[in-house]
Amino acid sequence: MKGAEQFAPEQMVGGPTAEAAYRRPNGDAPRDAGDPLCLPPGISSKRFKEFLCRLADISGDDHVTAITKMEELSQESYLDPSKCHDMFHVFNKEDFVSSAVVAPRNVGEVQAIMRLCNEFEIPVWPFSIGRNVGYGGASPRVSGSLGMDMGRNMNKILKVDVDGAYALVEPGVTYFDLHDYLVNNNLRDKLWIDVPDLGGGSVLGNTTERGVGYTPYGDHYMMHCGMEIVLPNGELVRTGMGALPNPNADPNAPAHEQEPNSCWQLFNYGFGPYNDGSFTQSSLGVITKMGVWLMANPGGYQSYLITLPRDDDLHQAIEIIRPLRVAMVLQNVPTLRHILMDAACMGDRASYSNSANPLNDEELDAIAEKLNLGRWNFYGALYGPQPVRDVLWSVVKGAFSQIKGAKFFFPEDQPDNLVLQTRHDTLQGIPSVTELKWVDWLPNGAHLFFSPIAKVSGDDAVGQYQLTRRRCEEAGLDFIGTFVVGMREMHHIVCLVFNRKDKESCRKAHWVISTLIQDAAERGWGEYRTHIALMDQIAQTYNFNNNAQMKLNETIKNALDPKGILAPGKNGIWPQTYDAKAWAIPRPKR
Amino acid sequence: MKGAEQFAPEQMVGGPTAEAAYRRPNGDAPRDAGDPLCLPPGISSKRFKEFLCRLADISGDDHVTAITKMEELSQESYLDPSKCHDMFHVFNKEDFVSSAVVAPRNVGEVQAIMRLCNEFEIPVWPFSIGRNVGYGGASPRVSGSLGMDMGRNMNKILKVDVDGAYALVEPGVTYFDLHDYLVNNNLRDKLWIDVPDLGGGSVLGNTTERGVGYTPYGDHYMMHCGMEIVLPNGELVRTGMGALPNPNADPNAPAHEQEPNSCWQLFNYGFGPYNDGSFTQSSLGVITKMGVWLMANPGGYQSYLITLPRDDDLHQAIEIIRPLRVAMVLQNVPTLRHILMDAACMGDRASYSNSANPLNDEELDAIAEKLNLGRWNFYGALYGPQPVRDVLWSVVKGAFSQIKGAKFFFPEDQPDNLVLQTRHDTLQGIPSVTELKWVDWLPNGAHLFFSPIAKVSGDDAVGQYQLTRRRCEEAGLDFIGTFVVGMREMHHIVCLVFNRKDKESCRKAHWVISTLIQDAAERGWGEYRTHIALMDQIAQTYNFNNNAQMKLNETIKNALDPKGILAPGKNGIWPQTYDAKAWAIPRPKR
Repeated sequence: MKGAEQFAPEQMVGGPTAEAAYRRPNGDAPRDAGDPLCLPPGISSKRFKEFLCRLADISGDDHVTAITKMEELSQESYLDPSKCHDMFHVFNKEDFVSSAVVAPRNVGEVQAIMRLCNEFEIPVWPFSIGRNVGYGGASPRVSGSLGMDMGRNMNKILKVDVDGAYALVEPGVTYFDLHDYLVNNNLRDKLWIDVPDLGGGSVLGNTTERGVGYTPYGDHYMMHCGMEIVLPNGELVRTGMGALPNPNADPNAPAHEQEPNSCWQLFNYGFGPYNDGSFTQSSLGVITKMGVWLMANPGGYQSYLITLPRDDDLHQAIEIIRPLRVAMVLQNVPTLRHILMDAACMGDRASYSNSANPLNDEELDAIAEKLNLGRWNFYGALYGPQPVRDVLWSVVKGAFSQIKGAKFFFPEDQPDNLVLQTRHDTLQGIPSVTELKWVDWLPNGAHLFFSPIAKVSGDDAVGQYQLTRRRCEEAGLDFIGTFVVGMREMHHIVCLVFNRKDKESCRKAHWVISTLIQDAAERGWGEYRTHIALMDQIAQTYNFNNNAQMKLNETIKNALDPKGILAPGKNGIWPQTYDAKAWAIPRPKR
Repeated sequence: MKGAEQFAPEQMVGGPTAEAAYRRPNGDAPRDAGDPLCLPPGISSKRFKEFLCRLADISGDDHVTAITKMEELSQESYLDPSKCHDMFHVFNKEDFVSSAVVAPRNVGEVQAIMRLCNEFEIPVWPFSIGRNVGYGGASPRVSGSLGMDMGRNMNKILKVDVDGAYALVEPGVTYFDLHDYLVNNNLRDKLWIDVPDLGGGSVLGNTTERGVGYTPYGDHYMMHCGMEIVLPNGELVRTGMGALPNPNADPNAPAHEQEPNSCWQLFNYGFGPYNDGSFTQSSLGVITKMGVWLMANPGGYQSYLITLPRDDDLHQAIEIIRPLRVAMVLQNVPTLRHILMDAACMGDRASYSNSANPLNDEELDAIAEKLNLGRWNFYGALYGPQPVRDVLWSVVKGAFSQIKGAKFFFPEDQPDNLVLQTRHDTLQGIPSVTELKWVDWLPNGAHLFFSPIAKVSGDDAVGQYQLTRRRCEEAGLDFIGTFVVGMREMHHIVCLVFNRKDKESCRKAHWVISTLIQDAAERGWGEYRTHIALMDQIAQTYNFNNNAQMKLNETIKNALDPKGILAPGKNGIWPQTYDAKAWAIPRPKR
């Protein structure tokens, strides 16, 4: 059983107070042959086997798998991840691992599983597809949790409504699935989806973690509509208009099978408190269905690339971007990418340099020149009929022309530019996995995302860039990052690429992100999302007024999940049944 | 003390089960001279006076007022409402009345008041400005509650940030205030606000009740960013990025005075559960500060009116509107208004007809002709530079031209059309109170809003129109209504105008709305917001899966407010300390 104490003591900054734990990891209890790699906290092998039998009664033998062998964690390909751990493990592969995985076949089984977990007091960690790359994959925060694979069997597109321009999806529906559905049903001329950089993830899962995409519908949470949720006690709730029964529904059918209200995917708020947001980045419920608004084909589309030659152009570029984005002249969520983000998509580090040190400015300039790119590269798009696009483009081009040496490209100008060709797809909602390639920047490449929110201001952008690049370089890493421009802020996504088979590389990546979280908080910057290993640290930075928000979250958590069975520790929220200190993850020394 | 039993028994459909109450209205307990019109439930006159003294210690004598005389309720002008009741009372004026009103001077006092109310177990009903016209004004759901007038002293625009295009406001800031600020600071060429029909209400209050406006920023909840909230226990929370301290904040200052994080109004979600929505239409906290996104001046504006001659044009119009709105060709929240909605703004009923019966189709046609309007009138606007507006207008005009007899007007075409001239302002965020005039349709005019959500479909629109018009006519009322077109749905706002000094007129209005709520639920339609008297009935229609959503809301309510002191009964959510049945409001017979 793996827990906090598995980390080498010399890496610790203050140790966990193990004695005070209510629920302690099982420590070095003897394992029987066939026992899982780790057991749920406080649960004996015998008790766990009883639990697995009961679980199989619910979901069938074929859908319950105990994780008993390391080999089951060996499949690391992105396209076929083993669904119980973090394929980009910054720790040992067997840290943060589930005891077993269950794949419920329907919502009724999810309800039954939640009730069973309450009965056995066994924590359960739901995931949709298990991608969540850079944030922990399908790994549970508490090792030994039951992984609940919501997507394996529950992967249907329940509805695509052309008039209302929405879809209703189950957890296992990927961006590829939804896009393919539109294409195969000849709907792509009517409706587009919004996709994140990688299309292999779950539409529902990404939204639940408040991920973003790059069309005008890039704020996935904003563009969801209606949720069906299994609460920790097994009760089923439909939010918004879903709480109003459809008069045609069969009252004798199980609730989750009842035909929903026809406005469920049309109006988010319903009547009374609007609770959807409390179920995002949350451990308060398992979302089993979700509505997502689709974008009407805008009647015209033109993607573009603007290259900016100098590292120092960042400040001016951001100052140009802000008013254009606020005014919706930049209609979508555009990105300003560091040269290495693009370079890494087109080749690994060894193809550019033999240097053992982080690439310096001269080397970065040389790479930019070689690739016919800038030190910063701005990928945007215009939406609408030609006259509308012309107006917008004249404003955008005029504004960026203030930057000396800025160059403007349409996709046809650079047919061999892999990134531009990919962004051309991404910005019109066509999914791909091309951009995962930058993970291969190093051998055995893996990554963590450091994702602070930034004001759309030159000062903040430069401040975050300088800070994060300096810390990366202190750890011997190259800075790879992008500014993703939302409605009023930027998600600054820093990609910490490390070699997952090199313990020292892993340790350095952990040190960098942990140090940056503290650095950022000291400057008033906070992260929007993080890897499971960093959740506590980030949650502790959102500590205004003596952690008032955390106390609020804990109060709600304990009311809805008194036994603390659903995703304990998720985003730093520990149920009353856990001693958070005993589960603390020590920060590595430099 | 007024409670459920004050309504005439002959009007009841099933009586309340008074015996079971934990907290009962005080009944006919003898009143001392100087006692309030009603006392908080279960609180003696002596105890209440002790409470008032303690309240005065917190907020100062000048800011605590006991409601002791009917005359204090006599001021009924919209522009200076008495702030403790419903100026459009459908019941007796002294029903739904506060025992006293306190106007805290700062957030610290709000916290102290919440703690005091917990100590005395006295319910408190916060309001911002107290308009809330058609939904109950400043009236508490539980008579005898302490009214908390958040707006009287806390009415500052704390910040308008031009770069970030947002404002941070206190509860008392009205739409007029915010607009005036922009004008007076020469910012109107940069930033617009979004306003509802009437500009006298609170920006924060309207958003909290999920009101809408008519520019592209018409979804007020969607366009808010960041809240400061006093919880029922007096704790202070800042949501989103507000939970991350500003490193420059003075750690010795009270929390509510600490300089907030600079991203608080830029990014809604922060880290972990996004709880803001749970505090809207809610009794979980008192919002003391809120961020609101402002719209960048779009660089061009053209409002328009399209008149549709026939009652039957409704179906085709809605079918035309849906794809245009989904495609954002209709960029804002437009309205399709029934002829009487416009007519009532330009004259009272007596100026059009002497008929004692609801106006029939011939009479409605005659009014439309007299006013040079259609039976349905569509008010929209185009935003952006001329070439963009030209493209959009050609599409809009082309689409509506399919309706035989449709006519197209710009404001300069109808300089005397009061509604068009007003909508020209409203759709560019210039506040007014002009449209309150339709309330004077009847003598001593008052109104209730019946506000079902509708699919943007011809069938749904016609179905709701026919149903609501028929029920109005059964009660002898004219149908006055408008379809407000949101992102994927319509708020169908039916204005039930009645004579508040005529008991029979009040009773009929109550009968109509109560009957319509049931009619609508039977057809799968639900309301987005309602008058305090109808909250229970509507909440009970959102009863999917054995009231699962209400059970969720109650669980959270009881966890955050175990004594049930904050807005008990709000939107049908009764704390564990109340017997909801004892507070039920009987439905009137036909």
